[in-house]
Amino acid sequence: MSKEINLNDQFPKVPVWDLMGIKVVEMGEGTATLTMPVEEKMTNPYGMLHGSGVYALADSAVAVAISTVSEKGKQFFTIEMKVNYLEPVTTGIVEARAKVLRKGRIVPGEVDVYNENKLVAKAIATYIIVDEKR
Amino acid sequence: MSKEINLNDQFPKVPVWDLMGIKVVEMGEGTATLTMPVEEKMTNPYGMLHGSGVYALADSAVAVAISTVSEKGKQFFTIEMKVNYLEPVTTGIVEARAKVLRKGRIVPGEVDVYNENKLVAKAIATYIIVDEKR
Amino acid sequence: MSKEINLNDQFPKVPVWDLMGIKVVEMGEGTATLTMPVEEKMTNPYGMLHGSGVYALADSAVAVAISTVSEKGKQFFTIEMKVNYLEPVTTGIVEARAKVLRKGRIVPGEVDVYNENKLVAKAIATYIIVDEKR
Amino acid sequence: MSKEINLNDQFPKVPVWDLMGIKVVEMGEGTATLTMPVEEKMTNPYGMLHGSGVYALADSAVAVAISTVSEKGKQFFTIEMKVNYLEPVTTGIVEARAKVLRKGRIVPGEVDVYNENKLVAKAIATYIIVDEKR
Repeated sequence: MSKEINLNDQFPKVPVWDLMGIKVVEMGEGTATLTMPVEEKMTNPYGMLHGSGVYALADSAVAVAISTVSEKGKQFFTIEMKVNYLEPVTTGIVEARAKVLRKGRIVPGEVDVYNENKLVAKAIATYIIVDEKR
Repeated sequence: MSKEINLNDQFPKVPVWDLMGIKVVEMGEGTATLTMPVEEKMTNPYGMLHGSGVYALADSAVAVAISTVSEKGKQFFTIEMKVNYLEPVTTGIVEARAKVLRKGRIVPGEVDVYNENKLVAKAIATYIIVDEKR
Repeated sequence: MSKEINLNDQFPKVPVWDLMGIKVVEMGEGTATLTMPVEEKMTNPYGMLHGSGVYALADSAVAVAISTVSEKGKQFFTIEMKVNYLEPVTTGIVEARAKVLRKGRIVPGEVDVYNENKLVAKAIATYIIVDEKR
Repeated sequence: MSKEINLNDQFPKVPVWDLMGIKVVEMGEGTATLTMPVEEKMTNPYGMLHGSGVYALADSAVAVAISTVSEKGKQFFTIEMKVNYLEPVTTGIVEARAKVLRKGRIVPGEVDVYNENKLVAKAIATYIIVDEKR
């Protein structure tokens, strides 16, 4: 896809991203695109990417999208998230494209997840934005 | 908690369980309890367990609960899942208690996730049961 | 079931309750039970109660449950709600039993919906509590 | 908006549509747009359209969108639906634009709900398609 963006300023080390190979490849005004390779360690007994992999990527994509429209020094927490799985994923790169649906303290975002140019999952997440020291 | 159950017959190797340390500790008629340790590799930038860890455990708990009421030789796929996060999790063991809400081809299940005896997340998932060779 | 509770103090006129026949029959600490008759006007083309009827009852049940643990002079808004439909409903009384899952400014609640002593739907809703004049 | 489409062939009398004033104004390949007026009878105690009104419109929009890609003689049932509320609705016309996300026996759809040209809600629903006599 496109090349990885260095987010060291906004996003310090994210252990779960390192574990799963999640990378930010695009950021816009209220949008973000993140990618993740399908690796054997994240598969289910049927050799497919486990739902939690899709979930981790989609959730992270919303967080990054929110970071583009939030003040510095805020923390974002997922209140809730829902994913619909449309197609199994077995190989290649998974790409999540997130979009902020509403700005404010409570921020919902939607995510489309693609694999090999096919829509494989759709998610909606709701975040709450809080001050860093709470 | 209780000791791990050997599920080799019903659940072959599950790579994502090995990665995250997910274990089945109890199974009943349409119910299952699974545990997972909070490990640094699954944390977010704030030092909390990432939502995808809670998700992986909860989703797996529903799958195991469904296995207790399904015929042999079936495969289970998550159609959709929604998680509400109630409290952050930073340490110890996370435990998910799942219950099948309705038997059939379309099987919804609910999950309560606990950490240190506190309810930290609540989820609903919908599975579809299909024949092994489809 | 039990007799209707007069909520004039806490719940002023609620037009949608009048339209659908929704009544509060029980309130506890963080819990509430509401009922609704299945009426022809709220049915779908198959003669079943439309999902929006179950939804209205379940959403209202969470609101009433929240009212039992909130300060006076607050307003409650649904941020999001998800319903899983387990069985069709065609006749009789529908009863929703709601429970607050976490107190605070962001309040998630769960609801079990019964018809003829059978679980027919399960829902999770997230509310935000705000001051009356915002 | 645009003029109402006559759906008597595909959609027989739908009582809940009559009650709420729901009308189909556009249908495409896997898409549909439905409208509903904000009427006092469907409001909450704050004078806003109750969530169940938005829900009824959004759910119906997905059903109509599915009808455009389904064989005749099938019935559609909502397995589950989730709505995120972005803005309160107090007046005018509400419009729901639904799109089928995947064809098959299990059909997820997404819906954007607008009021006065503003996105006020976003929903995802999952339907199951069954034969008429089951």
